[in-house]
Amino acid sequence: MQNFVFHNPTKVIFGQDTIPLVGAETCSLGRRVLLVTGMSSAKESGIFHEVSESITGNGGTVFCLEGVMPNPTLEKVRKGIELVRRENIEVICGLGGGSVIDSAKAIGAGSVVQHDVWKFFTGKKSVRSTLPVVTVPTIAASGSEVNSGMVLTNVDTCQKFGFANRHLFPKTAIIDPKTTFTVPGNQTAYGCIDALTHIFEFYFTNKQPDATVQYHYMEGLASTLFGNCQLALDNPSDYQARANLMWSSALTLNGLCASGLGKVGFPMHLIEHSLSALYNIPHGAGLAIVGPGWMESRHKDVGDRIQQFFRITADSLYAPSGVLATLGNLRSWYASIGAPTYLEDIGVNEQDLPKIARNSQALAKVWRMREYDEQLVERILRQCLRESNGLP
Amino acid sequence: MQNFVFHNPTKVIFGQDTIPLVGAETCSLGRRVLLVTGMSSAKESGIFHEVSESITGNGGTVFCLEGVMPNPTLEKVRKGIELVRRENIEVICGLGGGSVIDSAKAIGAGSVVQHDVWKFFTGKKSVRSTLPVVTVPTIAASGSEVNSGMVLTNVDTCQKFGFANRHLFPKTAIIDPKTTFTVPGNQTAYGCIDALTHIFEFYFTNKQPDATVQYHYMEGLASTLFGNCQLALDNPSDYQARANLMWSSALTLNGLCASGLGKVGFPMHLIEHSLSALYNIPHGAGLAIVGPGWMESRHKDVGDRIQQFFRITADSLYAPSGVLATLGNLRSWYASIGAPTYLEDIGVNEQDLPKIARNSQALAKVWRMREYDEQLVERILRQCLRESNGLP
Repeated sequence: MQNFVFHNPTKVIFGQDTIPLVGAETCSLGRRVLLVTGMSSAKESGIFHEVSESITGNGGTVFCLEGVMPNPTLEKVRKGIELVRRENIEVICGLGGGSVIDSAKAIGAGSVVQHDVWKFFTGKKSVRSTLPVVTVPTIAASGSEVNSGMVLTNVDTCQKFGFANRHLFPKTAIIDPKTTFTVPGNQTAYGCIDALTHIFEFYFTNKQPDATVQYHYMEGLASTLFGNCQLALDNPSDYQARANLMWSSALTLNGLCASGLGKVGFPMHLIEHSLSALYNIPHGAGLAIVGPGWMESRHKDVGDRIQQFFRITADSLYAPSGVLATLGNLRSWYASIGAPTYLEDIGVNEQDLPKIARNSQALAKVWRMREYDEQLVERILRQCLRESNGLP
Repeated sequence: MQNFVFHNPTKVIFGQDTIPLVGAETCSLGRRVLLVTGMSSAKESGIFHEVSESITGNGGTVFCLEGVMPNPTLEKVRKGIELVRRENIEVICGLGGGSVIDSAKAIGAGSVVQHDVWKFFTGKKSVRSTLPVVTVPTIAASGSEVNSGMVLTNVDTCQKFGFANRHLFPKTAIIDPKTTFTVPGNQTAYGCIDALTHIFEFYFTNKQPDATVQYHYMEGLASTLFGNCQLALDNPSDYQARANLMWSSALTLNGLCASGLGKVGFPMHLIEHSLSALYNIPHGAGLAIVGPGWMESRHKDVGDRIQQFFRITADSLYAPSGVLATLGNLRSWYASIGAPTYLEDIGVNEQDLPKIARNSQALAKVWRMREYDEQLVERILRQCLRESNGLP
């Protein structure tokens, strides 16, 4: 186990029918509230109305920034920052998925500085303060509701960049698993795959053989994710399954998994960010392709660990015959829950690989993962082609 | 899973050679520092000197309250409060085991009110603020260094009471596993037993069958504790074993285990507190006696869960033949690592049981565990007698 600092000050209010608490939590931080939401689902499900009512009922004034899209854009965040300045906003409430919450964080941090917010993402400026942010997640996926990370896409430069900073922890996360009852099946699956891939990154890109606290912790979270994903898909209103997914996905990225593991790479996310930046695919869909491909590409080094992990956490996917068979089972399971599993499934072919590999280099530099040069990224991407795997 | 609020704002700095950071962390909260320590071990090991130097090196002035004993007393805490008032202390640093850290918290909370500090413990007054507290644990056991609980003994009334309050979270915990290299074997064992018993309380006194996140989490922590206790006993300077014990014991009681489990009883601790209050035995030693006894007394209700738990977390203790055999193995293991396992081992006999049961009732009332009346407590205590178990 390596030395670490763990400090996650976010207050979590978790459970059914907790949405009416959003107003009091938000208005205790400021009365002029920017409510950031996505395309339409929060309005259709009624939760947008419920949150607005709760804020106004607690004396707050709601200003809206609607229409944040998956792979949220820098452009939208800049609009939010303008709105904050124009209306003297005091607190940001992010109601939606990881994209919405990341946008809320970026608006909060970007509003208190004179320079452009993108400079945070390229590492040219460091976050030193932010407007307070309250999060109300509506999908179990990124864990952004309880952590200090955010990811944004600059459409002009085709860059999807992300980073973490200790000032970015939300003040409060109000997590009601019932808000996810209406999440479509494929989005539910993508969310689980995102959370599982966080664990894959921590578990397989790094080795601290003595850090048993952390590995047992991750095994427990992965068991929960594998076990409850199918339950939620079979019965979208299964509260306990949704609650387990919501809490375990939050805990995969609240800082505990990685504490003590030393330097952890995020290569699957690195490569996926380029897929999302270039092809605007859902993050979880991209990870469903890249995750197994990365693991296959490293099976000689970490095959034993992969086998041990799946034997403990997902017995039905574990193949005693070997790691490649296990990873084949993982891909089959991903396909069965509605995720793409090869690059061809999202319309990407062999001739596209150099472009993707090239795109990944800017982020590899910011994340200090220089070993992931174009050649290595292209080799991993090749592993993600159905054709390379000798499949029709 | 039940609704919950989880909010643990303590900053954890964990790892070897982190003690020199104590000064900067403490002095950022105040310059006049009360350094609370135990009997002698912190001085003998040199860590007392190291912490003092670090504080003065960062511009702080150190005032000392030495000699906090296991099962820390109200009297000592009152002396600390007097010292704080006399010297205008601004921040408290607790350097030692759970007793020292609990005393530091009690001094911090008791110094900012006019009434006597014991009123917090009897539930007559509620903690609303405290002086800032920094913790430097020197044993893996109570988890007090990262949580909002504290336990104190009132020698006059023979009461060992404890409670938790959100204002009691330490600001920072600086945890260096190397400080535990000199912890004697029996104390190391008692610490592990304390941490394990926290998990027993959560896992067995309550049932939320769908809360898979929490149960997997607890199984992981217990596996780590079982697995590393013997390693640390065999080689007291095994850094990785000490680090795993230190971090897992902290995590058993930082709030995550219980979040989502609803109302959780602490019956093993309830009964142990009376043993400590009346016989001044180490907390972990009392739990080594009461824990297996409580589980035996409930084996018809929760035997299946106990079996499942040990099968997953401590294969070598699990007996396929049945839960009583498993609990027998647990007692044997406790004995092998130097803990008492029956009341007779600490000089308590059958005629003492009514007195212990009677002593437990005041705390049962404060903790709202009225089902644990004298009759039930005495029945459980009887299960903790070697004689009742037909043993010589």
